Amino acid sequence: MKHFATKASMKKTAFPLSEVYRLLEPGPVVLLTTVRAGWPNVMPMSWHLMMEFTPPLVGCVVSSGNYSFASLKRSRECVINIPTVELVKTVVACGNATGQSMDKFKTFGLTVLPAKCVKAPLIAECYASLECKVIEVKLVSQFNFFILEVVQAWRDPTQKRPRTIHHQGEGEFMLPGRIIRLPSPKTSLAGN
Amino acid sequence: MKHFATKASMKKTAFPLSEVYRLLEPGPVVLLTTVRAGWPNVMPMSWHLMMEFTPPLVGCVVSSGNYSFASLKRSRECVINIPTVELVKTVVACGNATGQSMDKFKTFGLTVLPAKCVKAPLIAECYASLECKVIEVKLVSQFNFFILEVVQAWRDPTQKRPRTIHHQGEGEFMLPGRIIRLPSPKTSLAGN
Repeated sequence: MKHFATKASMKKTAFPLSEVYRLLEPGPVVLLTTVRAGWPNVMPMSWHLMMEFTPPLVGCVVSSGNYSFASLKRSRECVINIPTVELVKTVVACGNATGQSMDKFKTFGLTVLPAKCVKAPLIAECYASLECKVIEVKLVSQFNFFILEVVQAWRDPTQKRPRTIHHQGEGEFMLPGRIIRLPSPKTSLAGN
Repeated sequence: MKHFATKASMKKTAFPLSEVYRLLEPGPVVLLTTVRAGWPNVMPMSWHLMMEFTPPLVGCVVSSGNYSFASLKRSRECVINIPTVELVKTVVACGNATGQSMDKFKTFGLTVLPAKCVKAPLIAECYASLECKVIEVKLVSQFNFFILEVVQAWRDPTQKRPRTIHHQGEGEFMLPGRIIRLPSPKTSLAGN
């Protein structure tokens, strides 16, 4: 992977694992990176959910028709990178091209950075990156459903209100609007 | 269930199953209704994901500590109702109370309507409701993870831009902002 940038271009700092749900629960599109035979690939994904706070577990569907499916299944590692609106055209382009015949990072101008705990790369241009290991594959063959444990999280601390993108289908993406704050005695919303 | 309202108060009309992903993929908090011993219960939930387009499959985590867990596990039916910002205080209140000791619908002023295919009720005040049957429970004991098939969908057709609520943790909810439209040759975003 010759095009790994140095850590110098990394704006992100370590982020507490117990807070990871705050990054994924609102439903952003993410860019999933994997490695296969030494070469990284990337695909957009918005079929994911939080499954546990600590350690943070994330479930996701990666269709078996995708080049990334085999990479994830074999390597059992990946990085979930969270892009903001500046990357929306790149996100769509990544979904409409295949890593089988091109280097999508080079083609679409994404900078890869070495991760700490996994071989799949972080994407420098994304405001947050979650290094993950596959911990459960029972539902992979029937539903393409993987369960990942986030083992290391990174976030750019200067981005207080990241403009994540939320896929609504047929080429529509919703951007975050107003924030409402309510007193909530529980960390989790879900209950009872 | 004496407090079922009549169909007359139903503003929703049938919604195509193949379009259900457009309601859930952007990550809204939902209100999950279930029935136990003839009495309905409701809880907020934002740990869910789309798993298939047609028939639409939805995965979700319902913690075993919740009263709704046993209802869902036993009845194998539920309704996913999607609220808008007008209900945000009700949503939080529903998560901080338990159906074990109160009728949350009555307490919080939610109107229940009979569903078409399941015993769990629709919530009149929510702009969309998805009637679901549990189809897979392999990961329930270890991860509290259920897979549901949406068998009937309803949506209020007059709500073109529903202001869904997206949980960000610690009492913060993000509301939808601007919509971006990009030409997308694929129905699904995820790929490759």
